Amino acid sequence: MTLLDNLKWRYATKKMNGQSIPEDKLDYILEAARLAPSSSGLQPYKVIVISDRALLEKIKPIAYGQEQITDCSHLLIWIAWDGYSDERISNVFNEMMDLRNLPHDTMDAYRQKVLELYEHEGKEWQAHHAAKQSYISFGMAIATAAEQKVDATPMEGFDSEKLDELLKLREIGYKSTVILPLGYRDADNDWLINMKKYRKSKEQFVLEMSVEDAADINVSEKFNLNDLATK
Amino acid sequence: MTLLDNLKWRYATKKMNGQSIPEDKLDYILEAARLAPSSSGLQPYKVIVISDRALLEKIKPIAYGQEQITDCSHLLIWIAWDGYSDERISNVFNEMMDLRNLPHDTMDAYRQKVLELYEHEGKEWQAHHAAKQSYISFGMAIATAAEQKVDATPMEGFDSEKLDELLKLREIGYKSTVILPLGYRDADNDWLINMKKYRKSKEQFVLEMSVEDAADINVSEKFNLNDLATK
Repeated sequence: MTLLDNLKWRYATKKMNGQSIPEDKLDYILEAARLAPSSSGLQPYKVIVISDRALLEKIKPIAYGQEQITDCSHLLIWIAWDGYSDERISNVFNEMMDLRNLPHDTMDAYRQKVLELYEHEGKEWQAHHAAKQSYISFGMAIATAAEQKVDATPMEGFDSEKLDELLKLREIGYKSTVILPLGYRDADNDWLINMKKYRKSKEQFVLEMSVEDAADINVSEKFNLNDLATK
Repeated sequence: MTLLDNLKWRYATKKMNGQSIPEDKLDYILEAARLAPSSSGLQPYKVIVISDRALLEKIKPIAYGQEQITDCSHLLIWIAWDGYSDERISNVFNEMMDLRNLPHDTMDAYRQKVLELYEHEGKEWQAHHAAKQSYISFGMAIATAAEQKVDATPMEGFDSEKLDELLKLREIGYKSTVILPLGYRDADNDWLINMKKYRKSKEQFVLEMSVEDAADINVSEKFNLNDLATK
């Protein structure tokens, strides 16, 4: 099956059956998450893996009682840097240069530019920025789980501050960003399984633009946008 | 090849050769971007596709002169909602209910909860949140391009405000979040092609946690974290 077939096969599983996924599939999914690209290669995130039932029971109320938390085989939690610092960024660049047998200062001008840009934006922006990178990795894990015919439920519905407190993430300078229960669907008891997958149509989703379109003040009419207003 | 093989094959291509990618491959990659999951299924983003050389020339300086902008076959630009609104969210839910032959008010309580949560967080948070969703789609496009043996360069290095201005995105209530030139590598002239791919080791990247770990205040030592401090 192609990646596109896999993306059609997957859905945000609402009811899992408690079955465990094989260790090699878990490793495979985590490896894809690890190989995801990130801005300047900083990888400002990690993945916490939890299969301990006692810990999952503690997390369930933090995720508003969603049953996949305890019916899953493993829960993956992406955690991202709470901000950037010279030390954090330099650590990464130094390791990168070591791997490539280059002097540590090879990319110093670039490293300095990145650091200045991030510092200028402030702490809150930095946490959002690091979190965004973790979403690319999260996407890779979702795609890979589908390839392995492992079900998964991408979840933002949890109280990240409470989760950070439970896992003591603040002490290590991280924030939880997004979570992914992995397991197998309970087909008989999943209300979503037979619902049609909803996505914007290709016409709504893709906008082809030429230099003339960009010059046209009425571009919105041209593209038949149905989701304009924010006020 | 598996998805993992494809992720090992891909790299952030620094020099492209100007060759065009076939239309069916472009469609396939965009289809994967469209099928990506998003929080509450809102898909608060679209993808702009540009192959018009005149427009790419205008974008190049906005991306600090990076040559892939004009050496690529197509440039994909993810644009996300600049904020959430009742109208935007309700439009999506209504379409979703129509597709599933359900009354519009079927998920009203949930829709209302989402809206309240987002409104509470404020406009800047909302734009970050919508942008995060677009990064999942971006990840799917990167994975799919690799599957199709199309090269791609994930890019955050551009002035998003200037790009928004050029493409008149503010008028349609969107902001550019991330861009992806697609094309083919110029192997002889790409400085990165023979460099080793740098990623955190599995030991650095994955943290397995038990209920005892979560209770242990010294969890950071246990996990050998080398990127702690941001103070």
